[in-house]
Amino acid sequence: MGETVLRADAMLTPEGVVVGAELAFDGSGRITYAGSARPSAPGDPDRETRDLSGHVLMPGLVNGHTHSAMTLLRGVSDDEGFMPWLAAVQALEQHLTHEDVATGLQLAMVEMIETGTVAFADMYHWDERLIELVRAAGMRAMVALASFAPDSVGFPGVSSWTGAEAVEQTEALAERYAGDRQIRVAYGPHAPYTCPPEFLRDIAARAIECGIPIHTHVSESAAEVEQIRERYGTTPGEHLASLGLFDAEVLAAHCVHLTEGEIGLFARTGTAVSHNPVSNLKLGCGIAPLPEWREAGLRVSLGTDSVASNNTLDLFEEIKTATILHRGARQDAAIVRASDVLDIATRGGAEAIGFRETGALEAGRLADVIALDVTGSTATPLDLSAQPRALVSHLGFAATGADVRHVFIGGRHVYADGEHLTLDAGAIRARAARARKRLAAAGS
Amino acid sequence: MGETVLRADAMLTPEGVVVGAELAFDGSGRITYAGSARPSAPGDPDRETRDLSGHVLMPGLVNGHTHSAMTLLRGVSDDEGFMPWLAAVQALEQHLTHEDVATGLQLAMVEMIETGTVAFADMYHWDERLIELVRAAGMRAMVALASFAPDSVGFPGVSSWTGAEAVEQTEALAERYAGDRQIRVAYGPHAPYTCPPEFLRDIAARAIECGIPIHTHVSESAAEVEQIRERYGTTPGEHLASLGLFDAEVLAAHCVHLTEGEIGLFARTGTAVSHNPVSNLKLGCGIAPLPEWREAGLRVSLGTDSVASNNTLDLFEEIKTATILHRGARQDAAIVRASDVLDIATRGGAEAIGFRETGALEAGRLADVIALDVTGSTATPLDLSAQPRALVSHLGFAATGADVRHVFIGGRHVYADGEHLTLDAGAIRARAARARKRLAAAGS
Repeated sequence: MGETVLRADAMLTPEGVVVGAELAFDGSGRITYAGSARPSAPGDPDRETRDLSGHVLMPGLVNGHTHSAMTLLRGVSDDEGFMPWLAAVQALEQHLTHEDVATGLQLAMVEMIETGTVAFADMYHWDERLIELVRAAGMRAMVALASFAPDSVGFPGVSSWTGAEAVEQTEALAERYAGDRQIRVAYGPHAPYTCPPEFLRDIAARAIECGIPIHTHVSESAAEVEQIRERYGTTPGEHLASLGLFDAEVLAAHCVHLTEGEIGLFARTGTAVSHNPVSNLKLGCGIAPLPEWREAGLRVSLGTDSVASNNTLDLFEEIKTATILHRGARQDAAIVRASDVLDIATRGGAEAIGFRETGALEAGRLADVIALDVTGSTATPLDLSAQPRALVSHLGFAATGADVRHVFIGGRHVYADGEHLTLDAGAIRARAARARKRLAAAGS
Repeated sequence: MGETVLRADAMLTPEGVVVGAELAFDGSGRITYAGSARPSAPGDPDRETRDLSGHVLMPGLVNGHTHSAMTLLRGVSDDEGFMPWLAAVQALEQHLTHEDVATGLQLAMVEMIETGTVAFADMYHWDERLIELVRAAGMRAMVALASFAPDSVGFPGVSSWTGAEAVEQTEALAERYAGDRQIRVAYGPHAPYTCPPEFLRDIAARAIECGIPIHTHVSESAAEVEQIRERYGTTPGEHLASLGLFDAEVLAAHCVHLTEGEIGLFARTGTAVSHNPVSNLKLGCGIAPLPEWREAGLRVSLGTDSVASNNTLDLFEEIKTATILHRGARQDAAIVRASDVLDIATRGGAEAIGFRETGALEAGRLADVIALDVTGSTATPLDLSAQPRALVSHLGFAATGADVRHVFIGGRHVYADGEHLTLDAGAIRARAARARKRLAAAGS
């Protein structure tokens, strides 16, 4: 494969908005040029030039926290309060098979690609077969094998692995995929309130020794913070710190109820967090202190959480919510800017989940790039020549996943003009519908 | 025109979700049947049956507060804080012409129809030409002629009308459109902090005498509440009450900072409110006390406000935000339900802005109905036969305006399979883009 050149109306780069833009990447998927459109060179059989007028380019989005397979549990009893929802989800999860997890993962990837997501951090059951589905789809993922305790089986219908076995499998898979550009493998101890301290201490020690990251949930709800305080007399963050967790590379999801002290701890230890505002609101968990995180210099990513608590994987919705939510809650329209959140959802996420060669459109990085149509009503008027920064406003406040028309990941074209090139979306949706029917029948 | 019959996978009705649904309406646009699909009758040349399998039906959405023409100001300097935004919007508004207002209104209607909105309450410059554009598009609108003071000209580039003249024009237009099914005319005194008390008192007296409703802004920001307190020593609601406003029919937009006393006042006087959570968040105004409004039995509608402070007119986004926002802010996942907010966005809005024959799919009402595609990724899986209420979850948490494929208003098909039947969307978008370029040049 030779060079690919994309020409579009505008492009979001680390240096700002380029109007009349060109992005070029070579056969290895690495960006060779990102800037203003250059005069057309004479025809080169090894160069494919694609005219994307009526489109704008931006880095592919990074989902900092999700449970892909739970797409199969979309919309389960989620309008009756927290406990009925949790009970219904857990009841159906008991009946999930390995095949279901594969189907749910593929459905999630169909939706993620359609809405412009190129990479995601996931915590659920993972094994080589599932990882290969991600590689085949062309996406990047940091996959964490969820675990609860050494002797408890996490997903009985899916695999017989206990927590201790999941930890061992994590290490085997991490070795198997070491250096892979698409896959990172992580430990997935569920949360400080569900995992025994000695299990967490063991994982922390192994993580440091093996150089494997940890993906966990921290302080999602006030109730669990209270549980930790009652059991251990401290905050979840201090509890995890006392077990050595933050000497490893940690991605902490939610962090809604972090104290000032915990924020300082996370900043000092380089702990990455994942902000999941839609899920946090929908489940009644609260509003995370994003402005304080940013003030303290935390590494921040943006996540959807699973669709069971969202109910989509559209990160554009998450970007808008993360931008406006804190403005409203703090009564300050400048406290969070769309430009900040677009950065969190791309470069911040790529850095937080460890795909550091991606996340921005600049020469030398890998070409994870998406093209959005800007000819529709919500992109009208969009006078980029008079106000280039209007692109930031458009992407932050008006664009949705439905506007995404092309997705390239590491230069590989995975979504072209609204058509999937790596996944059979129709067949996957049909399988997902059948799986849900079977689950509903089994659970009733 | 004879009878039209729509058959769809499911339908949202006041009695709940009907799976395998049929909606029929007669040539006058009135619903004759809403329920389970009936056995097919023998072919009747006067009956058109439309198979909408793969779709679901719900009442058309009602936008309880917007300023349509401001679509032309989408994305103006909105990522730098409140004051820079306001200054930029006001600078461009000085250059708006009557033609621009017509274009902005049409662009808004294109977007509203595309995203499933059938009726809206608007406050801006209005006159017969603009009203006729709404009628031609097939939409319903409660149009309020914005005014600030008897001698101040509201929109100098658009018309020379002073506030006093706008009030007189309101009455002439109200008479002209009395009994019209698509149009209601309202007074539009901007807000208690911008309008002098004697002007508001005069409008209140006229409104009561003429039976014309009033659409105004109340307590959008903490700053204006403080201004009213300083000037009049009371709350905005009590101030307006002392001027007799609530003896008329009032639609009060925003109401973010209503006190318990004002909520009681609004309940006693039957004052309708419009909840605009996305705008309130984006502009840093705060979080309105929707749970307390509902507890007190207020008449509530849902609004987007103008796109300059949103930046879209997609009420599905507003529905989701209104549902999850209060859950998060109060840390209670049951405090607001999607079913409540869907009702607010349809029946509640229709009632609040005075189209009381619409807003629900039941025999006898006018057929304002939209069809959403449910074959896409975010609607998968959607196992309606096992759990009919999953439709509520889908419409509340996963569906977006991009899923809307058909819109009927009073039985008139205005949007068919993604194509506009009453508006030339392409030409309108092109005109809007040209108008914005001219405004940007004039404003710089």
